[in-house]
Amino acid sequence: MAKPGFLVVISGPSGGGKGTVMRRVREMMPEIALSVSATTRPPREGEEDGREYYFMDRDAFEEMVAREEMLEYTCYCGNYYGTPKREARRILESGKNLILEIEVEGNAQIKRLYPDAVSIMLMPPTIEEMRQRLLGRGTESLETVEKRLARAREEIRLAPGYDYIVVNRRDEIEACARHICEIIRAESARACRMTDEIEAFFI
Amino acid sequence: MAKPGFLVVISGPSGGGKGTVMRRVREMMPEIALSVSATTRPPREGEEDGREYYFMDRDAFEEMVAREEMLEYTCYCGNYYGTPKREARRILESGKNLILEIEVEGNAQIKRLYPDAVSIMLMPPTIEEMRQRLLGRGTESLETVEKRLARAREEIRLAPGYDYIVVNRRDEIEACARHICEIIRAESARACRMTDEIEAFFI
Repeated sequence: MAKPGFLVVISGPSGGGKGTVMRRVREMMPEIALSVSATTRPPREGEEDGREYYFMDRDAFEEMVAREEMLEYTCYCGNYYGTPKREARRILESGKNLILEIEVEGNAQIKRLYPDAVSIMLMPPTIEEMRQRLLGRGTESLETVEKRLARAREEIRLAPGYDYIVVNRRDEIEACARHICEIIRAESARACRMTDEIEAFFI
Repeated sequence: MAKPGFLVVISGPSGGGKGTVMRRVREMMPEIALSVSATTRPPREGEEDGREYYFMDRDAFEEMVAREEMLEYTCYCGNYYGTPKREARRILESGKNLILEIEVEGNAQIKRLYPDAVSIMLMPPTIEEMRQRLLGRGTESLETVEKRLARAREEIRLAPGYDYIVVNRRDEIEACARHICEIIRAESARACRMTDEIEAFFI
């Protein structure tokens, strides 16, 4: 059996630049796997079942939740999105590391199931910089911005429950993505993940 | 007060290429501090007290050990070598990280005093490769080589007590040193070391 991979959880307030950083991390570390999520949202044109998402109806999704077959899930704009445990297990058993981008609250849920998951919170340096970023986009009302900031405040209070904190400073996407890659490579060298190498010494 | 630094412990069987890797790590990461050790060995020409070593007599050294003023110490060729706690504390309080190269057995001793020290064991991939390396030097008798291998076997059994294991494959000094630097940078982002950054978000 291949040495199993480990789970990397990336989270953080939205508006923290998570999406951009994640894209760079995947480019820098193409060997890391992403899981295909399940969703109740209808497929868009060109989307294929099992490639972009596993498309399923609400009943089927809720049944999986009830059977505890979801590693984590969330409801967004009236649709469910979740990571099937089966999918995560298949990837980890194949020896690949798996990266999951989840809501901040989902970390505790995942840590219960995978105590050796590596969790990284990506946070903006200050609430003020986050406000400027959100206002700068010009796509959201002042009220929405304040709501998101209030939510970020709650989320950052959960930061000490994460293993690592990476501060995403303006214009430092590259440095930020590199730092996340370093954390993942460092975690690969944890003594508890090196039992094969320790054994190999004696052969 | 500056954010305190943390202690990085590097260890591993001798003949594992530790010295060469350490030199590269220090070149790649000049901001990390080395502590000046204390020794009972007489100063060599050009050596200065407080620069290469703190030179002291046997009584003074043993008194420091008795007063528990040494972070760790060892006896080599009839002379004591040790790290004064005072010296380590001064560096860490100044906000610098401190790297210590110690004997494998010293790790447990240091973990008791500094539970958040980061320990890295540098090990050769196999006992056979280690044998070839030692024989290749041509400076040691077959008997000495076998003694060192026997000792290495005992030392590698202590590997699971380290935080990280880095395998030093032949001709991979650079990769090895880079990996150690990555571990140190990753450890700087541990949530427990980021409390200042978490607080700063709310200001």
